[in-house]
Amino acid sequence: MKVTVTRDKALRFVGKNEHGLETVFDTTKEGGGLNSAPSPVETLAMSAAACTAMDVVAMIEKRRKKLDHFTVEIEYERAAKHPKVITKLHMAFHVKSPDLSAEELERAITLSQDTYCTVSIMIKRSGCEITWSHKIER
Amino acid sequence: MKVTVTRDKALRFVGKNEHGLETVFDTTKEGGGLNSAPSPVETLAMSAAACTAMDVVAMIEKRRKKLDHFTVEIEYERAAKHPKVITKLHMAFHVKSPDLSAEELERAITLSQDTYCTVSIMIKRSGCEITWSHKIER
Repeated sequence: MKVTVTRDKALRFVGKNEHGLETVFDTTKEGGGLNSAPSPVETLAMSAAACTAMDVVAMIEKRRKKLDHFTVEIEYERAAKHPKVITKLHMAFHVKSPDLSAEELERAITLSQDTYCTVSIMIKRSGCEITWSHKIER
Repeated sequence: MKVTVTRDKALRFVGKNEHGLETVFDTTKEGGGLNSAPSPVETLAMSAAACTAMDVVAMIEKRRKKLDHFTVEIEYERAAKHPKVITKLHMAFHVKSPDLSAEELERAITLSQDTYCTVSIMIKRSGCEITWSHKIER
């Protein structure tokens, strides 16, 4: 598997996958960037959420449950000194569904977090603690 | 620090940071997605490259060296079975500069990879081997 990241200007970089699909990275003005896109560490946290969200949504819809809304809010803490790794990360799942049970949602999240979600499992293996919670709106 | 990821449609998700800046995630059509954006694992690999590229570019330009082009090509391998974590990752730095020495570039990459690059260091701590190489074009 192959991806590339090329500098655009200042600290703005454009990533590209093998299909030519792009992701842009930047940093704040105080950090020397243009603040035009999320930072690499923010994007890492989003990648973990997107990775587990894809698993969970696919599992729920395979059970023919209806999903009207699906958001993951991630809050994380970083080490005070370099390397400023993420030390703690919490994922709050907010789901709107007329027929999904809490047990079904919990089973899907657990399966993803323990077995399938590449990004979350790599983050956990780095030494970061990942916790989660959920709220189902009818 | 806080980010959110919200489902758009199918397995397309939109991430947002605290400034409202967005990153889109999707997966291939065979995977149930729309293939409209890079996948979470591709984005993780790009995040590592963007993170170290920001460090390296900032260090080089602090030394008043001219950078006409800066690309990182990442190739990676994943585990055959779930969780399909990244097991090996190679970063090839391609730089165009009239006055940057190989030693200066190597020093900057080493400093980033060993001390500053949050994303690369988290990936290494997960058990993945990261190697790198470089080519300077005049």
